[in-house]
Amino acid sequence: MRVITIGREFGSGGRELGKRLADALGIPCYDKEIIDEVAKAQGLSSEEVESISLSDIRRVYPFTIGRTLTASYYYNALAIEVIAKQYEVIKSLAEQGDCVIVGRQADLILQKQSPLNLFVYADEASKLKRCLARAEQGETEKKLRKEMKRVDKERAANRKAFGGSAWGRKENYHLCVNTSGTEIKELIPSLVAFVNAWFADKE
Amino acid sequence: MRVITIGREFGSGGRELGKRLADALGIPCYDKEIIDEVAKAQGLSSEEVESISLSDIRRVYPFTIGRTLTASYYYNALAIEVIAKQYEVIKSLAEQGDCVIVGRQADLILQKQSPLNLFVYADEASKLKRCLARAEQGETEKKLRKEMKRVDKERAANRKAFGGSAWGRKENYHLCVNTSGTEIKELIPSLVAFVNAWFADKE
Repeated sequence: MRVITIGREFGSGGRELGKRLADALGIPCYDKEIIDEVAKAQGLSSEEVESISLSDIRRVYPFTIGRTLTASYYYNALAIEVIAKQYEVIKSLAEQGDCVIVGRQADLILQKQSPLNLFVYADEASKLKRCLARAEQGETEKKLRKEMKRVDKERAANRKAFGGSAWGRKENYHLCVNTSGTEIKELIPSLVAFVNAWFADKE
Repeated sequence: MRVITIGREFGSGGRELGKRLADALGIPCYDKEIIDEVAKAQGLSSEEVESISLSDIRRVYPFTIGRTLTASYYYNALAIEVIAKQYEVIKSLAEQGDCVIVGRQADLILQKQSPLNLFVYADEASKLKRCLARAEQGETEKKLRKEMKRVDKERAANRKAFGGSAWGRKENYHLCVNTSGTEIKELIPSLVAFVNAWFADKE
């Protein structure tokens, strides 16, 4: 089974890389699909699920101080339920066959399946450029920089909540890929070659 | 021209990886050979050159406080000469044809040749295991841990002296390869595939 997980810095093009890599390998790529499936199962909107899965459970408490105890418990229980469901969905997708999974701590969740764990990163300038290119009208550079920091910080917190070691530290991944100053599609042939040889060796 | 530079953490197997990768690609690997050539050119022993090239030039001063001024100046001038010669040797080797160069800030020195810059790393346990396996009799784990720290610290200082950004930070390399818990030779097919596709794309 070829399972490839992709961790990525916000703006590094990790999602595009995952999609293109999966396409080139002829296997599915799961990203937002995971959120959608969890949402459906839990009777929530994808936005609700995304906001929960991007929050560190342990961070819920301070936010609920001052609210009623019931509300606090309810929200936290929901967060745990959603995260547990996400865990289940990721496991089940990976068992169905070869795939690429972007984000969602898949490398930690799928440890027993021995996935190939990639981390995609880039320098600040490249990430900002990429974010600017896809930004909505009126978004300022300053706001984007702030968003980049915020999302990466949340990813780090999520990883910690899952019991994983520090997010983005190269020690957690088999291979770290720098996308600075390159088009994602230019990296695909090398990565496909790497992945094919990697799994050929394991089979 | 295919020039591959390899930065590495002490004990990560970077040297072995460079040698095996070069062998598999059918191109030369330069590592200690650089030191030997510099030594020959400067009329020094390889050990002398190595001790100089592994020292940050700027660090010479504190060591010579209390000695005569002449000795201090002499040593520093020699260090600069040796490092300049090393720079020249690396440039000249890379101009001769495809090659792998391990260490010696080759990624910084060869920037204009657009090398593929790899960084090889591993977790502490794997590095220690590798060091223990090749250690001389009587070397203690404690001593090896200290040596691992010392060498990596010197490499970082050298990189800084060359005007490079922080050593070992993934942003400085195209690809970072984790050797934790694997035999180096097992990684070679994937890396050969990656390298071939990488340069095919550039040609």
